Amino acid sequence: MQYRNITRIIGLLIALFSIAMLPPALVALIYGDGGGTAFLRSFVLSLLIGMVFWYPNRHHKEELRNRSGFLIVVLFWVVLGSIGAIPLLLSANPDLSVADSFFESFSALTTTGATVIVGLEQLPKAILFYRHMLQWLGGMGIIVLAVAILPLLGVGGMQLYRAETPGPVKDSKMTPRIAETAKALWYIYLALTGLCASAYWLAGMNLFDAIGHSFSTIAIGGFSSYDASIGHFDSSAINLVCAIFLLISAMNFSLHFTAFSSRGANLKAYLKDTELRFFLLIQLVLVAIVFATLYNTATFDTPEAALDAALFQSVSISTTAGFGTESFASWPLFLPMLLIFSSFIGGCAGSTGGGMKVIRVVLLFLQGSRELKRLVHPKAIYSIRLGSKALSNRVIDAVWGFFSAYALVFVICLVALMATGLDDITAFSATAACLNNLGPGLGEVAAHYGDISDTAKWILLVAMVCGRLEVFTLLVLFTPTFWKS
Amino acid sequence: MQYRNITRIIGLLIALFSIAMLPPALVALIYGDGGGTAFLRSFVLSLLIGMVFWYPNRHHKEELRNRSGFLIVVLFWVVLGSIGAIPLLLSANPDLSVADSFFESFSALTTTGATVIVGLEQLPKAILFYRHMLQWLGGMGIIVLAVAILPLLGVGGMQLYRAETPGPVKDSKMTPRIAETAKALWYIYLALTGLCASAYWLAGMNLFDAIGHSFSTIAIGGFSSYDASIGHFDSSAINLVCAIFLLISAMNFSLHFTAFSSRGANLKAYLKDTELRFFLLIQLVLVAIVFATLYNTATFDTPEAALDAALFQSVSISTTAGFGTESFASWPLFLPMLLIFSSFIGGCAGSTGGGMKVIRVVLLFLQGSRELKRLVHPKAIYSIRLGSKALSNRVIDAVWGFFSAYALVFVICLVALMATGLDDITAFSATAACLNNLGPGLGEVAAHYGDISDTAKWILLVAMVCGRLEVFTLLVLFTPTFWKS
Ligand SMILES: [K+]
Ligand SMILES: [K+]
Repeated sequence: MQYRNITRIIGLLIALFSIAMLPPALVALIYGDGGGTAFLRSFVLSLLIGMVFWYPNRHHKEELRNRSGFLIVVLFWVVLGSIGAIPLLLSANPDLSVADSFFESFSALTTTGATVIVGLEQLPKAILFYRHMLQWLGGMGIIVLAVAILPLLGVGGMQLYRAETPGPVKDSKMTPRIAETAKALWYIYLALTGLCASAYWLAGMNLFDAIGHSFSTIAIGGFSSYDASIGHFDSSAINLVCAIFLLISAMNFSLHFTAFSSRGANLKAYLKDTELRFFLLIQLVLVAIVFATLYNTATFDTPEAALDAALFQSVSISTTAGFGTESFASWPLFLPMLLIFSSFIGGCAGSTGGGMKVIRVVLLFLQGSRELKRLVHPKAIYSIRLGSKALSNRVIDAVWGFFSAYALVFVICLVALMATGLDDITAFSATAACLNNLGPGLGEVAAHYGDISDTAKWILLVAMVCGRLEVFTLLVLFTPTFWKS
Repeated sequence: MQYRNITRIIGLLIALFSIAMLPPALVALIYGDGGGTAFLRSFVLSLLIGMVFWYPNRHHKEELRNRSGFLIVVLFWVVLGSIGAIPLLLSANPDLSVADSFFESFSALTTTGATVIVGLEQLPKAILFYRHMLQWLGGMGIIVLAVAILPLLGVGGMQLYRAETPGPVKDSKMTPRIAETAKALWYIYLALTGLCASAYWLAGMNLFDAIGHSFSTIAIGGFSSYDASIGHFDSSAINLVCAIFLLISAMNFSLHFTAFSSRGANLKAYLKDTELRFFLLIQLVLVAIVFATLYNTATFDTPEAALDAALFQSVSISTTAGFGTESFASWPLFLPMLLIFSSFIGGCAGSTGGGMKVIRVVLLFLQGSRELKRLVHPKAIYSIRLGSKALSNRVIDAVWGFFSAYALVFVICLVALMATGLDDITAFSATAACLNNLGPGLGEVAAHYGDISDTAKWILLVAMVCGRLEVFTLLVLFTPTFWKS
């Protein structure tokens, strides 16, 4: 393993990440809320830590091998999640324990959006801004990971999106390619954030809220600056803006890239994409079911209110944002469970959304149909096609492997949580909400995660990272094969 | 489609099945419990129905095509389940509604063992015997289906157990082969039942209970003649007999066949079987976890009592028998959920057990491991092996197709049940208990299914048939491809 090179890269990453402590310090200065010192201290501390890792290894630049790629990706999230907890540990308000600080930081950076804090309105603006910003940076990391890195590593069928043949990745080839793709994605991400913030502002948010909420919207993170989340604003205009930008952010960013990088915008790219069509169909069906049920059970006074709630809440949960206008956990019949289940599907691959990704569920469905056809005509050859492309067995195998790992992690996590004493519904929904990077659950974790035990929090933290890294990227580190030279 | 031939076969089947009404009539005669008339009437009625189907089509013997095979298998369970409901409809005690009669009959014949009847002790012996016997006949049907028919039809990866190449099945070849295999299996099934009944009798049951419970044990059905199930006898000897014969019945009957059909018993066949080894490992781990948890939470007074309960209940639920010594639904922490989850794994393929079958879970696990290795060495070729045999992609595809269909049916069933107003835990556990052909659930269906709505009962009845027919056999009938000439 290229340990010194990896340490060098992680050191650089931490040093770079330390800069993220400065904007909240600036916010503290503007609002004079006394939250600044913690961030300045964190800046110095994390810069130092980064230097300690980087300096002794600064000359160890080598070609990166595939395996080092896995280790770097996992360390990226684990190390930055830990560094991100520092300002929360150092702040007097909120006064968080170690477990709570790590939970909140990992929840932000993985764009899960599960919070342990109650009384968000009483926090310094610097902390609120920092939470939003961590989600935004996490979202950016996820896009680069999903569009540029995981396809190269071949995780969970993501090689679908890879042009070249598998094999060790050469630094000389990887770096410029990733850097170039990352830059283009960065512009798209930035542009969407700007548009979203403007739309929120036009819909009536103040500037601070508009920027903060645009961060957590584009990242499909779901953190808000209010305990009542988006419900605080009580505005269907804001709900609509949120839903629209969530839908856009839950699409594959390669699509945005393709559509806007060609000469003039090319919107046909969207219509031709099988995954996107399924995604929109799922959204439509979900909104229809939720609206019909809310309407029939007269949960709201007017049909308009029911439609507003159905649209907003369906999109928010199924894209795994986890924003709320009210507690859907108390909605009638099967609605809470249906929405939690929809988060397993989640967003499209290469988006900031969580869950198992629409493309994998589409493949699951296509494989099921193929088996049915094969039963009737056992001798016929049926291939699985996405658009005009027939998929190789290798990709399909990888997707099934992904499902089996996802199911395994889910069951282990669920049983472990119940062993800590959580009830069925809380344990089930918390596991789903964290593994799918959704955020809010049902039962005890419908509003926040403050009341569960520290052990449960650490288990859920691991689930978040597992979900965000498409399970395999993390699991592979625990195999003997990985560590054999 | 070969409709007249199929009608002929189904007619014959019903006429043959009518004979099953006579033993309960005999039991009624012996015990003088007044339950006999309903069975004599049912005998005449079902014989007549059978004749009506058979007589006009008696000359339509043709080679059976693959597709007709699916239709016959599905009709077999649906028609016999319906005919089996007749004596329950005609009996004055118990006084069951139409929905209840069908539910009880399908639950028996699919060896699910979910009951709607409370107060079993007050029923005529004839009815009690009939319930046990339906399970026993159902179990026999399942063995033949799983060992001889599904492999030919290629459902859900069962072609694993098929020697020849896929293709249309010729009547000339199929009938003698199935008949021969079925006869051998029938002897094994009969011998096991005899052994089990003797063991129960020696352990202290009276003859009626011993025979009845041996029927539902070997069929892994789980019906008892007492509301308290096996707990009624309050005997660890009986518990142990039950657990041992459940373990034997949850093994692949092809193994029993191989082991005893060669000259002299050949027990090595068992040890060499990968699925069986995994099955025993799962049982061991499960009993250990359950015992450790019961012991640590001091749920029982003595360690012996805890071990007795842990062994019996783990085996009973994980093999999908569903017998109980007490309500495991009230056990502490994650135990109820863990046991319900274990029923998803269920028995080995080719056994009377339900669930997804151990072999498929083993393949899931092997595929997951292969993906992890492939991530580290993308260029290496890894095949999935069972023992010394490398599996074809075709088989593995079929298994994944099976999982996707199972998951889809599960979610649809769960949401439908919640739409009828059932709470989360009841809906979840009832779906699992019926789809896995387990029987008892948690919440409202922990003791019996009498209190849920008729709609919920019909939904669960479909789930039972779906589970028993390995989902695909039923699903394929709903595809346009199937009905196109
Ligand atoms: K989220
Ligand atoms: K059963």
